[in-house]
Amino acid sequence: METKIKIERELRPWQRKMNEVIFGAETPAGKWFDIILLIIILISVIGVMLESVPGIREDWGELLHTGEWVLTIIFSLEYIARLLCVKRPILYIFSFYGVIDLLSVLPTYLGLFFVGTGPLRVLRCVRLLRLFRILKLHQFVEDSERLMRALKSSRTKITVFLFTVLMLVVILGTIMYLVEDHQSGFTSIPRSIYWAIVTLTTVGYGDIAPSTPLGQFIASIVMILGYAIIAVPTGIVTNELMNDKNNIVSNRACPNCSKDDHDEDADFCKHCGHQL
Amino acid sequence: METKIKIERELRPWQRKMNEVIFGAETPAGKWFDIILLIIILISVIGVMLESVPGIREDWGELLHTGEWVLTIIFSLEYIARLLCVKRPILYIFSFYGVIDLLSVLPTYLGLFFVGTGPLRVLRCVRLLRLFRILKLHQFVEDSERLMRALKSSRTKITVFLFTVLMLVVILGTIMYLVEDHQSGFTSIPRSIYWAIVTLTTVGYGDIAPSTPLGQFIASIVMILGYAIIAVPTGIVTNELMNDKNNIVSNRACPNCSKDDHDEDADFCKHCGHQL
Amino acid sequence: METKIKIERELRPWQRKMNEVIFGAETPAGKWFDIILLIIILISVIGVMLESVPGIREDWGELLHTGEWVLTIIFSLEYIARLLCVKRPILYIFSFYGVIDLLSVLPTYLGLFFVGTGPLRVLRCVRLLRLFRILKLHQFVEDSERLMRALKSSRTKITVFLFTVLMLVVILGTIMYLVEDHQSGFTSIPRSIYWAIVTLTTVGYGDIAPSTPLGQFIASIVMILGYAIIAVPTGIVTNELMNDKNNIVSNRACPNCSKDDHDEDADFCKHCGHQL
Amino acid sequence: METKIKIERELRPWQRKMNEVIFGAETPAGKWFDIILLIIILISVIGVMLESVPGIREDWGELLHTGEWVLTIIFSLEYIARLLCVKRPILYIFSFYGVIDLLSVLPTYLGLFFVGTGPLRVLRCVRLLRLFRILKLHQFVEDSERLMRALKSSRTKITVFLFTVLMLVVILGTIMYLVEDHQSGFTSIPRSIYWAIVTLTTVGYGDIAPSTPLGQFIASIVMILGYAIIAVPTGIVTNELMNDKNNIVSNRACPNCSKDDHDEDADFCKHCGHQL
Repeated sequence: METKIKIERELRPWQRKMNEVIFGAETPAGKWFDIILLIIILISVIGVMLESVPGIREDWGELLHTGEWVLTIIFSLEYIARLLCVKRPILYIFSFYGVIDLLSVLPTYLGLFFVGTGPLRVLRCVRLLRLFRILKLHQFVEDSERLMRALKSSRTKITVFLFTVLMLVVILGTIMYLVEDHQSGFTSIPRSIYWAIVTLTTVGYGDIAPSTPLGQFIASIVMILGYAIIAVPTGIVTNELMNDKNNIVSNRACPNCSKDDHDEDADFCKHCGHQL
Repeated sequence: METKIKIERELRPWQRKMNEVIFGAETPAGKWFDIILLIIILISVIGVMLESVPGIREDWGELLHTGEWVLTIIFSLEYIARLLCVKRPILYIFSFYGVIDLLSVLPTYLGLFFVGTGPLRVLRCVRLLRLFRILKLHQFVEDSERLMRALKSSRTKITVFLFTVLMLVVILGTIMYLVEDHQSGFTSIPRSIYWAIVTLTTVGYGDIAPSTPLGQFIASIVMILGYAIIAVPTGIVTNELMNDKNNIVSNRACPNCSKDDHDEDADFCKHCGHQL
Repeated sequence: METKIKIERELRPWQRKMNEVIFGAETPAGKWFDIILLIIILISVIGVMLESVPGIREDWGELLHTGEWVLTIIFSLEYIARLLCVKRPILYIFSFYGVIDLLSVLPTYLGLFFVGTGPLRVLRCVRLLRLFRILKLHQFVEDSERLMRALKSSRTKITVFLFTVLMLVVILGTIMYLVEDHQSGFTSIPRSIYWAIVTLTTVGYGDIAPSTPLGQFIASIVMILGYAIIAVPTGIVTNELMNDKNNIVSNRACPNCSKDDHDEDADFCKHCGHQL
Repeated sequence: METKIKIERELRPWQRKMNEVIFGAETPAGKWFDIILLIIILISVIGVMLESVPGIREDWGELLHTGEWVLTIIFSLEYIARLLCVKRPILYIFSFYGVIDLLSVLPTYLGLFFVGTGPLRVLRCVRLLRLFRILKLHQFVEDSERLMRALKSSRTKITVFLFTVLMLVVILGTIMYLVEDHQSGFTSIPRSIYWAIVTLTTVGYGDIAPSTPLGQFIASIVMILGYAIIAVPTGIVTNELMNDKNNIVSNRACPNCSKDDHDEDADFCKHCGHQL
């Protein structure tokens, strides 16, 4: 019985109220909670970034260190508050955002007990992921979902595309390894594949670049190929976005002539004039 | 009473005439005024640019300096003329183009009274923004508006996309800062984020490039990601342009409710059911 | 009377026959003439290219020189043949392809009479433009025209886009000139504008790259901007291609119900079943 | 008679069974065979890659060498098994995948008999091509075919585009060879064309970059051109994908002439006029 209560418990009024503020965004208090949390997260992430800059770390290290502890304590209190007001605390702890929330504070505390966990402190940047939970505003959610739906329904097409790109890149990289002078950077097949990716995606660092005429000729083909095949994912996503729009538009049939290609804002059937 | 006149005054015939020439583009005189102003602005901007080239400044500095003063006086006279012939001079002064017009001449005059305002003189390049006012030709305005409308209606979708890109770039930059050798340029998180932006957008300067195999592997993922997700804004804008076109195509107003957003194949008004 | 004959003359049977072979591509002889000419042009352009490579010029210069004279004489004979069999020779001489044909042979002859016209010899590459005349095969012409029509009808939209990009690039270049260290390549406004173009178009040579944090921050904005606004021309062209398709499809009205949204390959009206 | 049997023979029950497992993917055994083969191929390709890295070759060369022989023997047995269970072994040997299968094992055996065939061993990467045969899963095949169909039907349009790009690149390269300082990398026309391709496709290595103002001006035009014309292939592919979708949507066959390329809103067959 006790275990069951621990897993799913009845919320008392103050817990329900707290839950509404912390997890919801419908009430004014909930909105303000989200906005303040958003600002604190942004400040803390900027702090982590600045701390990694050697010059700033030396001059402002003390301030950043203090600020970091203040923010960590705020986040810890927030974590405890979340634990207090959810129905199933254990479910929350092991949920995606629960883990993220814990990872947001853990690295700072670890620095107290263990030496050499300094590099791990940049992990506090995962705090940024918490923004996704906050930004659940109406229009954003709807449009994100539309984009996600378009990307999801073009999943296999994009996989086919990515797989073809990967094959191409391995084969082109191997050819370049055979053809090119190893002095100009093509020292191994993985490195040549890395070059092929840099070139096909039109990034073009220039740290590895072909130096022989034959290598430059093959590189030219890779570039034009990369320039042309970018059209494929673009076509796929555009296509899906258009399809999705059509699906949304046409989900009401006319009760008279049962045609269903009406716009979202239509009140009357455009074919027979019957009220929808 | 006097203040009111200052804010909104009756224009005398010569002022009305002048207003037509300076602000309008319908009369032949107004068109010629715009074309001449356009040429003068282009000359003055090219002058500012050339002055910044060390070699040219030494050889032609005298001529550029004289030309600059001539153009500044022309722009000053134009500014005064604009002030003279508008209904509400104060409204004009604080309008977007009023401020731009003032900023076009101010840096040159400031150079007379203050020493060390030299670098500010390049601010005269804001003159270029004045071209936007001039280029209000019929076809251009219509097409610009169509593009702006498409971009506006895809505003939230593009914001979602940009926000996701920013998150991605911060997270990828932090990972690279942890993974990569600090010798090859990844000296701080902000610099690593800068690298992530350079790579994800397929710009690829090569000033910072990964040198370790693991770093190059992650970089490859970033590149392919950047190569693939460019499809998303493209799909969004194409989608909106197509939607907008559909709205424009159906320019038949309903004889009953006079709404005009019907599809091309509609036989009845979708708002009131009246036959089209 | 004589002048008139010179401008527009009656073609004799052998001239008509010759015209058909040289200018037409319908007869087998005309097709073979085109294919052989195509191969000769390609060989001659490759020859010009190879001649510019220092190593090859030294080893094979003699052969390339002889080959060049043989090809020049062939092109000269072809030019004379074209003159002989057109109705209006003068019109041909001053037509686009007439000038190109003359420029294809002139540089070689000029080398005989004048010293120092060596660099002009690469002008023989204009021969490549002659390929456009040859490649008038049915499917190619149709698809080229469709693409050209789509680009033409999106002319103003693309101009608006290019103009906005140019403005953006001038303003961003000027800001970077003010902000960035002149040591890292931003030595003048034109150079900074060049950098802005290199960055906005995602080319990213890396010969000029920002070195200060503020410069890198602005550069990041430029990159994301360039990454996002490439969606605009893509959207425009896709949109026009789709519209063009629709225009082509729907140009036959049904004689019975006069609906005109039929496919190109439709033989019967899809609304009333009447023969089209 | 005997030759005929060799070319097309009756399969015995155990051969039919074997064929089903090796060539098919419908039975559970066939699926497992494909999955195991896929893993072995991936391992062998990764092995080939790692062997090309100098550091790994020295430390793990012995293990990689042994592994390579184990995998080669497995592939050899598979090759023999395939030969045993096909109806026409000779047809298989000279088919695309037959040649690939042979090339997958040959380089290792050649190393036994001949010295100096080391570089040829990377040819074993062709094993990767065998993945295409394996990945014939339902959804993948359908979507690949849809993409291939869209690319095929836009074949001529893409050819026109690529041809125009090639012409542009030759002409721009030649102009840059004339205009630019030969010291900054534009040493020959082919190299200048290589630069033009690197720039137009927005790859931008930076190994060759213009250094004169005129060269940088022309380069700017090339970049903006490359930035704008990428819209063309994108528009073409998107257009074809949309068209293809329409064709697929209308999968109703006419009861009279059984053609099935009708629009969604068609009430009558557009080929014979029969009611649908």
